[in-house]
Amino acid sequence: MATGQADPERRERIIAAALDVVADEGVAGVSHRKVAARAGVPLGSMTYHFTGMDELLREAFTRFSDGVVALFEERLSAARTPDEAREAVTGLIHELSEGRQRDLVLTHELYTLAARRPAFRELTRAWMRRSRVALERHFDPETARQLDALIEGLSLHRALETAPHGRELTARAVARVTRIG
Amino acid sequence: MATGQADPERRERIIAAALDVVADEGVAGVSHRKVAARAGVPLGSMTYHFTGMDELLREAFTRFSDGVVALFEERLSAARTPDEAREAVTGLIHELSEGRQRDLVLTHELYTLAARRPAFRELTRAWMRRSRVALERHFDPETARQLDALIEGLSLHRALETAPHGRELTARAVARVTRIG
Repeated sequence: MATGQADPERRERIIAAALDVVADEGVAGVSHRKVAARAGVPLGSMTYHFTGMDELLREAFTRFSDGVVALFEERLSAARTPDEAREAVTGLIHELSEGRQRDLVLTHELYTLAARRPAFRELTRAWMRRSRVALERHFDPETARQLDALIEGLSLHRALETAPHGRELTARAVARVTRIG
Repeated sequence: MATGQADPERRERIIAAALDVVADEGVAGVSHRKVAARAGVPLGSMTYHFTGMDELLREAFTRFSDGVVALFEERLSAARTPDEAREAVTGLIHELSEGRQRDLVLTHELYTLAARRPAFRELTRAWMRRSRVALERHFDPETARQLDALIEGLSLHRALETAPHGRELTARAVARVTRIG
């Protein structure tokens, strides 16, 4: 390919640039032109690599959720006992809610997109399913589903609270949902 | 007032119109011009009633969260026993996650705004505090805080899932966090 349009590295660069534009300006502010400029690629290569903005957004948010899922998998596979798994979950809640503002913004941009356009709920569904599978290393499927919702709620409330609750409360909530204490 | 600019009904109409524009186009798409047109008021009355877009957004999202809090208060004040309160909470989770798409969108628009701009976390904090106070009619403050996070997570996951979980799972999660079963 003399033009280099099939360069897979270029496709990845466009995806990364799309996430940057969403983080800065929101899904509402994304355009092919802005993403191409951010990625440093010609506008024409956007339509070569992606059928449209929906595919690009899908790929971008998939990359983003892959990163969060990888963190879940890493922490939960390192835990050897249910108690270590509870400790890992407590740590994840605090890590997620104290993490980069960019990650918080991207999470909410995805949720807003899925709230507006049900087709994007395939993405949120897939993300939840993978988180639950990671939790199922240590807990039964129903507990994993309840715990995944608790992780979401506690992380979200800590992140959007001006006086977030402490780690002990998180640990006790995790213990209750996993039926300890 | 010959101009009618101090008409409190007009101020409320502008606030309602702002919520409509946010629901349709997102916070990113809001402008004084669009809100004035939607409310059927002259552009000049926007600056008479509001110091700027931030004040208008604050008022609009406060009206929106007032509605959700009122639903919490109504259902929880009708409950006479802890078991009735658990049943009310289970019902609220399903009502919120099966409710109007508009409400889901507005919730996520507010969370995205608060994620981007910490000043708006005063709004999300106030909303959480009022929900917890309603829950404290029946549960101790720590349980109320855990339960409020569980309500958030289960509602959000049901709404963004293509195969949402059933009411029995919700009831069992509520029982665990409130230390039953």
